[in-house]
Parts: sequence; structure tokens; C-alpha cells
Amino acid sequence: MATPHEPKQDRSRATRQRLLEATIDCLAETGWAAATVAVVAERAGVSRGAAQHHFPTREDLITAALEYMFDSRTQQAKEEAMAVAAMADGVGRTEAVVAGLVESYTSPLFKAALQVWTHAAADPALRERIVPLEAKFGRVSHRRAVEALGVDDADPVAHHLVQATLDMARGLGLADVLTDDSARRKQIVQQWAATLHAALNAPRALADSRSPTH
Amino acid sequence: MATPHEPKQDRSRATRQRLLEATIDCLAETGWAAATVAVVAERAGVSRGAAQHHFPTREDLITAALEYMFDSRTQQAKEEAMAVAAMADGVGRTEAVVAGLVESYTSPLFKAALQVWTHAAADPALRERIVPLEAKFGRVSHRRAVEALGVDDADPVAHHLVQATLDMARGLGLADVLTDDSARRKQIVQQWAATLHAALNAPRALADSRSPTH
Repeated sequence: MATPHEPKQDRSRATRQRLLEATIDCLAETGWAAATVAVVAERAGVSRGAAQHHFPTREDLITAALEYMFDSRTQQAKEEAMAVAAMADGVGRTEAVVAGLVESYTSPLFKAALQVWTHAAADPALRERIVPLEAKFGRVSHRRAVEALGVDDADPVAHHLVQATLDMARGLGLADVLTDDSARRKQIVQQWAATLHAALNAPRALADSRSPTH
Repeated sequence: MATPHEPKQDRSRATRQRLLEATIDCLAETGWAAATVAVVAERAGVSRGAAQHHFPTREDLITAALEYMFDSRTQQAKEEAMAVAAMADGVGRTEAVVAGLVESYTSPLFKAALQVWTHAAADPALRERIVPLEAKFGRVSHRRAVEALGVDDADPVAHHLVQATLDMARGLGLADVLTDDSARRKQIVQQWAATLHAALNAPRALADSRSPTH
């Protein structure tokens, strides 16, 4: 994609992006152990020296790839939220939001991130690098879901049900790692959306409408 | 624990159990790569030769450990279900069931199983061995949850809400892998138990009461 007329900075950025995308593909397809800088560089069609210029260590590469995954996912969520905002209020809209969230947790991005999380569980140095990224991503995902559903996050019931929906989506993602779980998942999404919609719209006393603690 | 008077078969069974428990501890604490037959044997205080007599390959050891985890978890679920059955019907009972399910997904057993699943995602031979175990465990977990909640699994709404609860529990398990998520989790469990209880007990037409497809 780089041409002789392309400024050096753009070429560098394109190389970086190719490396990050190759890292995600390697993690999702071949797992943690196989996703080394050398393998990723080869897959990206980048020399090992150039790869190491961008990412001196494997941890640098993995952390940057995780950040890149989160940015991609956040951008995608923003576009979904805009599409959903055009829909009429109703259970159909709630189902579209839930389906979009769940889909993001069954993507190759999730499968790649799962390799990193699982490895980080037994690697304190990596864990320390990715926990702040995770926390930020969790906050952004929650905010996007709240916006897409059009609910009041200061209402503890709505806040916790949005959180539960994200947890359920994460669990469906994990259930799809070893087998194709799509047929079962479709039914779960429909039922969850119906139950969530009813619960979010049930009349209730908002006596305790302080900001939730999380 | 073995004594000179202990029959040979019992000693062999005790050795096997020590190896399986050491495998689970190694996986949960040090991750996939470190959980080799040699490391596990040392941790269990068993000679490498004896370990290899029980489990000729690492795959044999890991598969047997996963089976042992599922059996332990199933036994635990059975005891929980009996304790819960003594409680009066109501949201408190539903919350006890949800809390018990979620707790099982945040145990070291889950953290050990996560290491195996994640590795199996990129290892077709291991995946082939564990998918049937997973399917069986999924069915048993579902049945136990149905019994503990005292619902009719032939009702598609109840069936899918029980499945969704197990998915949410799995997602909460994953959220606890890198950080202590217990404070947030407690609030999610309370809210979901209230929502689930209302949904399971809402009056509804059972026009379509065929057995659910999953």
C-alpha cells in the first residue's frame, strides 16, 4: 500500500497498523504462544528489524495490539449506536443493542483479547499493563450501551442491568470459543432483550436515585 | 496419606487424585505453559515415573483434570441445590441460586478451566477431547440450575432465562480473572436475581410450550 510518494510518517503508520492487525489475527488463530514478534512480522510482510523498531519487546506489541482492538471496537460501537439511535423506541431497539454488544464479544477481536487476558492471569507484569486498558474499555463500553439503550445511568436498576448485559455478552463470547454457539446464542439474545426491555421500562419508585457506586 | 496397610488400589487412586488437584492448582496459579507433567508431579510429591504411569501424555493429564473439575463442581452444585431446596420460594431463594452459580465461575476451578479452553481454541486435538466434556457439563449445570430454581424447563422463557443466567455467570467469571471484581459482582447478582425472579414469575401465555430446541 505504501508508494514512493507517500510521506515517511504515513508509511510508518501503515506499517504499525499492519503489525497490530497481524498480531490480532495471530492471537485469534494460533493462540498466545505462537504470536511472537518474528511470526507477526512475517505475517505482516514487515522485516523483523522494522517490527522491532516499532515494538522493542513482545509485551510492547501485545499491549499496543490490545489498545488497537479496544479503539476498533469503540469506533464500531459508536457507529452502531448511531444506527440504533435512528430506530423507534421499543423492544426491537433493545434487541438490536443487545445483539450488537453480543456480536462484538464473539468477534476475532474478543478471541484475540481472551488469549491476552488468560496469559496475563499468570503474568503479573503483563497484567499490570493491561488492567488500566481494561478498566477504560469497560467504562467506554458501558457508556455506549447506556446511550444506545437511551436509559438513565443514575438509576441503579438501569446501571446494573446494563452491566449485567455486558457480563452476559462476555459469557456468550466465551461460550463461542470452542464451538459455534450461534444458534443457541440467538435465542438467548432474544429472551434477554425482552426481559431487559420489560425491566428497564417497568414502573418503579426511584427513591434511591443516587449515583451508583460503580 | 498412604500407609503400608492401605490396599494398592487405594494408594493408586490417592496418587491419581493428588496429581489432578496439583494440575488444577498449577493451571490456575501459573497458567497453561507452566503446567507440565514434570511440574505437576513435583507439586503433588509424586515421582515423574509414577505420574507418567497414570497419565502417559500431558493431554491425558489435562483432560482428566478437566473431568475431575467438572465432577467436583457437579457434586458441589448438588449440595447447593439441596440446601437451596430447603428455602422458602421467593426472591431470596432465586438470589441464593444465582449467587451460587456465579460463585462457581469465580473459583480456582474456573480459572484453571479457562487456561485449558483458551489453549484449546488454537489446538484442534485438545479441543476435540474437551468439547464433549464441555457439552456434558453444560447440560448438567443447566439441569441443576433448573432444579434449584424450581422452574419448568419445558417453558421456553424459563429455559432461555436459565441459560442466560449461566452465560452471565460465565461472563462474571471472566471479569474476575485479572482483578478482584467481587464488589461490582455482588450488585450485579442482586439486580439480576430480582429481574430474573420477576420474569420467571410474571404471568404469561404458555401457548408455545413445546420443548425448547436447546
